Amino acid sequence: MTSTFEIDFEPIGKRVEVAPGTDLLDAARQAGIGLASVCGGEGTCGRCRVVIMAGNVTPPVDADRRFLSQLEITSGQRLACRCQIYSDVKVHVPKASLVTDQRLQLDGQTRQLQIDQTIHAYEVEVPPPTLHDLRADLERVIDGLETAHGLRKLSAEPAVMQALTPLARRTDWHLTTYIRRHEIVGVAAWGRRPLGLAIDLGTTKIAGYLIDLETGEELATNGIMNPQIGYGEDVISRLVHADRTDEGKHELARVVREGLNNLIVALAFQAGVAQEQIAEACIVGNTAMTHLLLKLPVRQLSVSPFVAAASSALDVKARELDLEIAPGAYVHLLPGIGGFVGADHVAMIIGSDLDRLPHAAIGVDIGTNTEIVLHRPHEKYLTSASCASGPAFEGAHIHDGMRASTGAIEAVRITDDGIEIKTIGEAPGVGLCGSGIVDAIAEMHRTHIIDRRGRVQAAAPWVRKGERGYELVLVPGERSGTGREVVITQQDVNEIQLAKGAIWTGLETLIEATQTKLEDVREVIVAGAFGSYLNLESAIRIGLLPRLPNATYSQVGNAAGVGAKMALLSHKERARAQRIAQRTGYVELTTQPGFNRRFALSLLFPQQT
Amino acid sequence: MTSTFEIDFEPIGKRVEVAPGTDLLDAARQAGIGLASVCGGEGTCGRCRVVIMAGNVTPPVDADRRFLSQLEITSGQRLACRCQIYSDVKVHVPKASLVTDQRLQLDGQTRQLQIDQTIHAYEVEVPPPTLHDLRADLERVIDGLETAHGLRKLSAEPAVMQALTPLARRTDWHLTTYIRRHEIVGVAAWGRRPLGLAIDLGTTKIAGYLIDLETGEELATNGIMNPQIGYGEDVISRLVHADRTDEGKHELARVVREGLNNLIVALAFQAGVAQEQIAEACIVGNTAMTHLLLKLPVRQLSVSPFVAAASSALDVKARELDLEIAPGAYVHLLPGIGGFVGADHVAMIIGSDLDRLPHAAIGVDIGTNTEIVLHRPHEKYLTSASCASGPAFEGAHIHDGMRASTGAIEAVRITDDGIEIKTIGEAPGVGLCGSGIVDAIAEMHRTHIIDRRGRVQAAAPWVRKGERGYELVLVPGERSGTGREVVITQQDVNEIQLAKGAIWTGLETLIEATQTKLEDVREVIVAGAFGSYLNLESAIRIGLLPRLPNATYSQVGNAAGVGAKMALLSHKERARAQRIAQRTGYVELTTQPGFNRRFALSLLFPQQT
Repeated sequence: MTSTFEIDFEPIGKRVEVAPGTDLLDAARQAGIGLASVCGGEGTCGRCRVVIMAGNVTPPVDADRRFLSQLEITSGQRLACRCQIYSDVKVHVPKASLVTDQRLQLDGQTRQLQIDQTIHAYEVEVPPPTLHDLRADLERVIDGLETAHGLRKLSAEPAVMQALTPLARRTDWHLTTYIRRHEIVGVAAWGRRPLGLAIDLGTTKIAGYLIDLETGEELATNGIMNPQIGYGEDVISRLVHADRTDEGKHELARVVREGLNNLIVALAFQAGVAQEQIAEACIVGNTAMTHLLLKLPVRQLSVSPFVAAASSALDVKARELDLEIAPGAYVHLLPGIGGFVGADHVAMIIGSDLDRLPHAAIGVDIGTNTEIVLHRPHEKYLTSASCASGPAFEGAHIHDGMRASTGAIEAVRITDDGIEIKTIGEAPGVGLCGSGIVDAIAEMHRTHIIDRRGRVQAAAPWVRKGERGYELVLVPGERSGTGREVVITQQDVNEIQLAKGAIWTGLETLIEATQTKLEDVREVIVAGAFGSYLNLESAIRIGLLPRLPNATYSQVGNAAGVGAKMALLSHKERARAQRIAQRTGYVELTTQPGFNRRFALSLLFPQQT
Repeated sequence: MTSTFEIDFEPIGKRVEVAPGTDLLDAARQAGIGLASVCGGEGTCGRCRVVIMAGNVTPPVDADRRFLSQLEITSGQRLACRCQIYSDVKVHVPKASLVTDQRLQLDGQTRQLQIDQTIHAYEVEVPPPTLHDLRADLERVIDGLETAHGLRKLSAEPAVMQALTPLARRTDWHLTTYIRRHEIVGVAAWGRRPLGLAIDLGTTKIAGYLIDLETGEELATNGIMNPQIGYGEDVISRLVHADRTDEGKHELARVVREGLNNLIVALAFQAGVAQEQIAEACIVGNTAMTHLLLKLPVRQLSVSPFVAAASSALDVKARELDLEIAPGAYVHLLPGIGGFVGADHVAMIIGSDLDRLPHAAIGVDIGTNTEIVLHRPHEKYLTSASCASGPAFEGAHIHDGMRASTGAIEAVRITDDGIEIKTIGEAPGVGLCGSGIVDAIAEMHRTHIIDRRGRVQAAAPWVRKGERGYELVLVPGERSGTGREVVITQQDVNEIQLAKGAIWTGLETLIEATQTKLEDVREVIVAGAFGSYLNLESAIRIGLLPRLPNATYSQVGNAAGVGAKMALLSHKERARAQRIAQRTGYVELTTQPGFNRRFALSLLFPQQT
């Protein structure tokens, strides 16, 4: 018989040997793990939640039932302080149960976010009703909050009352309330922290971030494809579908709302928290995505002069969007600018601090729609434009396009000796992700495999005639990860020409319309996931970005997501977003004189330098 | 060929002879009918709406399409000023199209209501979007409202945006907006007045009133049975059903919400107005009815100590209750008091001005649940109680019970010569309505056909032994309206004993608990439809009401409905309701010492006087 057992804390990876009967809170202390505990191990704060993944522990006690739902207990969740071990045990420690600092990890960039709380959590304990104290449940809790915390004029909606009455009885009238101004927006078991959800709702991808509203800590992050893709990869197809029948609008809203709920479930699971702890959300998206989410009319958005139904910042109840978070939670939607330039663009500006730069700067957020904004420090106004660049840079419409995962070709070099490729994970090449495609086209252009018009040269090396016309064989079948060749077709080249041409036309039009000189632009902020991995030299070579000194460029990742998080955490950032929206002018490209000619010319590749 | 045609204006009943080609506004003027017209017949205000019921008129023109929906035009609606006649014509003039004074007709009582508007209507005309003015639709209208009316900081929810965008285009950007504080809660064609809906949500019946929010004028009134009756006539059966399964709560809410929508459709049709003109509602009901409407948890309400989930006044969005009125409209719910004594009781107090009387007074609102309140002018608090009197006084559970309609026996007199009855509409008797039942039982008691315990005496005249025990034949088959006899059974007598016993117990307990002397009570206000038709002497004789001088009693009709209308029209009345709720104590009868004995004794009929 062993005199000690081993506890394995995951995902931290720490192990410790303890005596039988030791509780897990104690074991965590011995392992040097900062497990949260306000009550000091009395089972009354509910903060030290862990998941038992393997091994024998004592059965759940009343304290567990007070803080955990039946489902949570069944799935192995316990309060560490109430749980003693009787074998080797493997324990998962959710991020929310850890004592941590307030730094926020953001796609490789760490920055301190300003916290200026939208939601405050207050704990309350009240006596249960008796024949001599018949106050209604809500009023009882409101009285308790006034007594304990001096809060006045509180109210709650029926949706919150629906949750409060059973929860109060389950927790013996011992609760956490989430309060927004004078409104109780959510209730949870004692000790559960208020969380927030930031969403970057893209045409192709949706990114979600789960944040502790008091500390700013990022507890989980995840992404899904926008399920509206089934109704068209581009924005216009979806708007047309939404407008075609009465049902269309509801369908498109339904699928994206379902997608968001799936994302919320995943985020809460990853962080080991309850969905009802999410007491506030902030969603940013382009104008079309916001309209479809809110079921706003879209006909006027898809015909000239392309007018939004509404563009102000908005607080909507999450349940009106069918989002399953705290019953009274609000979703804050940042304001849009005009046409298709929406809240995601405003979020990108605050996320990259573009509006605060002391010199002229351009922000480019490359996606299915690419938004461009020009900031000039001595002008009151920013100027923005939206380009229909399409999903080619995300690997769609490309013969061997794929997402940036293992085996994706991310860099290409063509020499006299052959074609060198670099793949993600050093695996055999399977297909091309966005940066690989741009690299490949740039190299084909440099080595004259394509001409300025993008035509693949029949006589060039590694070019052959395939079913779909001339194509470059990048990886022969015998060396690829799938046994099939990886090729770049004439069609692929044309897709990239359309995409980069759309962006170039936008940039050029914006520069001209504002009478700016390109050489005065001191900084170009390239935002978006694709933009982060882009080889700038290749992008410049194919005419996607202008030739400016390398130091001009900064690749900042998902700045719109950062902006969504900033607005989630701070009233001041919301006010800043409102100011930016009000002082950003919008140039509708397609109605500018000479647009068609300019676009046609932009399809050409630049002269070789 | 005639040189004039006759126009028949209904339901006013005025006729006038006019020349062919005369427009209907002109014809109305000639007939001396005050048809509303702000623009003076220019077709730009949309106020003079009428319905063509027969005859030939000119086809609809653009002005009609601007102010009327396609459905309304198809059903014969026209602007009177744009419509010329070419035959004899019959015209229906909706109440909303008439110029009227501000008096409100209330179930036979006319009283001036205080108007202190919750909703203001503002008209606005803005330029349509162009390539040089790309403001979003909502912001365009908000800018217009600021320019024209100096309104600032306006906002609207997505539900209102959904309505605004198509309406603005249909009306050439020429709109009426309904504004509540800083929120646009509804939009309609130019000239449509803001309306309000007051609802008295009873356990058995639902009464609805459609009111002009600016003038207080009652445009339509209607009533339906509460469709929740299918889930039990009494409150407790419905609470049990709602709590039994997850679905139960949703079912009970769904049926009552559907019922309310049917009522809204009927009211709008009667008044000749559009449902989206209804920009505010006020609903009063007892605690159980409110909980079921809002889907609040009810388990704690059906077991001791009978606690409500919430009791404060509440503003809920109408669309959250699935009510089809203006998309952003609020429903105001008056506060409840405690236990089952809910908002309808508070409404009854303000509707009867009971709280302002200079002497001690009792209010009794007889229904399926009967609420009783005691007001003492020198005490800070009112005291209330709720009695489970059941639906017998509404004709339910009575063998030949029926609603108060043609053929219902409403009064009974038993003499040595026979039984005299009085029926509604002087028609042959068909059954008994509430007042007839009370009258019949009182007469049976006076003439010793029943004894104090309620037993029907076998040897008494007109008594026979039927299948269900001894029964009194009130109307023989050959003289009844149906060919079948109308009888009072032993069971009927017992039902009435239970009902009047419940109310008597409540009264007695309330009087005792507050150490009041009955003779100090100077006024008894009997509210409710049943209470209005009740023969007071009979009610006193059976022990339903205490023997006090006749002048003490006043029968005020549906005071709860009046209170709902008052709160609909005035912020001050809402604040008054809140004060009344806060200073009304609640006595839970069933937990009072000696309740069972008191109730058993109350079943006896009083000693003959």
